[in-house]
Amino acid sequence: MPTITALGFDADDTLWESEISYINTKEEFARLLSHFSSYEQVKAELDVIETQNVQLYGYGFKSFTLSMIETALQVSRGTVSGSLIGQILARAKDVLKSEIKLIEGVAEVLSELHERSPQYSLFLITKGELFEQQRKINRSGLRRYFHHTEVVPDKTPEAYARLLHTHNIPPEQFLMIGNSLRSDILPVVSIQGWAVLVPHPLTWTHETTPGQEVPAGRWFEIRNIRALPNFLKRFDELAGGNQSK
Amino acid sequence: MPTITALGFDADDTLWESEISYINTKEEFARLLSHFSSYEQVKAELDVIETQNVQLYGYGFKSFTLSMIETALQVSRGTVSGSLIGQILARAKDVLKSEIKLIEGVAEVLSELHERSPQYSLFLITKGELFEQQRKINRSGLRRYFHHTEVVPDKTPEAYARLLHTHNIPPEQFLMIGNSLRSDILPVVSIQGWAVLVPHPLTWTHETTPGQEVPAGRWFEIRNIRALPNFLKRFDELAGGNQSK
Repeated sequence: MPTITALGFDADDTLWESEISYINTKEEFARLLSHFSSYEQVKAELDVIETQNVQLYGYGFKSFTLSMIETALQVSRGTVSGSLIGQILARAKDVLKSEIKLIEGVAEVLSELHERSPQYSLFLITKGELFEQQRKINRSGLRRYFHHTEVVPDKTPEAYARLLHTHNIPPEQFLMIGNSLRSDILPVVSIQGWAVLVPHPLTWTHETTPGQEVPAGRWFEIRNIRALPNFLKRFDELAGGNQSK
Repeated sequence: MPTITALGFDADDTLWESEISYINTKEEFARLLSHFSSYEQVKAELDVIETQNVQLYGYGFKSFTLSMIETALQVSRGTVSGSLIGQILARAKDVLKSEIKLIEGVAEVLSELHERSPQYSLFLITKGELFEQQRKINRSGLRRYFHHTEVVPDKTPEAYARLLHTHNIPPEQFLMIGNSLRSDILPVVSIQGWAVLVPHPLTWTHETTPGQEVPAGRWFEIRNIRALPNFLKRFDELAGGNQSK
């Protein structure tokens, strides 16, 4: 019978809203460029450039901003004005400075689980840009609930395995909670950990397509984060049932 | 008598050349803008904008690129052409893709110290942008020498203390090697660790001004990284001498 001793929480769109900033910024960006190209074409071009640049720039809002500027040059064939570039930069700064909006129920659930310590050690495990994520963690007011926070360049099975090894956590005692099949569920299940998907309506398509089938049996789905404490109380029963299948 | 069991190495301008890319890029940038403003004024303006933006963007070449674009808008009063912005972006990509140039002696010294394991555990501890630094570490060919590599958002005493605590290393058994008084020497000395300054001719001025006096006694200076193995052989004697002062 498995016993969970450590809980990992994804951050963007699991603890706080993130994708909505990208979506709103993309819409404003497409509007700014609307006399060069259609809304749909601007967004499609940005998606292509963003995907190409991830290899070189990594994730995060600064990378996204550089990709917007490149897209503006591309769709305008180099004729975009300085003032429009300035508006893109100003928008990026506004987003980086904007308040962190916690997802409903997050503060209560973390507080409840934190009070149950030492039953569980809580880890915040997020991918992306270190400085940007650390700033969000600091401003979220949630740091005090976590035993450790880790920003990884990408959520690979190796990244999870290394983190668990450093903190002496056997994978079968680890449960990851997040909104992305690709980043939070698949890699954890693949190293014999456990995972809970908490879907977010605005998950980036990159994250909803895991690239391969996720084997059943070691992951579950709950409707929202408020359901987590009850899920954990029933975990042994649920996991036992899955194991005997 | 202190015994060193763990060595921390800074990366940029300690293991490989870094500042030179910024210097060369700044010069090219100032040339690109030379019909708007003088070379010196462009560089001064960039320094101001870069320093302001560090609070919001953090360190790294992507932040630097966004600051260059902002500077171009500023010195041209918004009249800069799209094609010039395109040249800035292209230059940034070239730098991010460029080969890692190891500092002379680094590979030999790390290989020698690595062979002395388990006398020393080697840590690579660098600040900056996670993705950018991980890419450099991967491409440097040096990862195999390190027990652990860590990218921290900033090299504060707390960041070092947390890392040492996670790896169960008492600070008095830890020696940090780097080119920056501010980032590699002062914070480590302040938590009762040891440090060795290996000066680099191109150290960013931000790093050479520690902001406060560094108390003597727990840090040393060597001429170059090749002198490190001999320094370590004599460490007990040197540190004992300093302690009795």
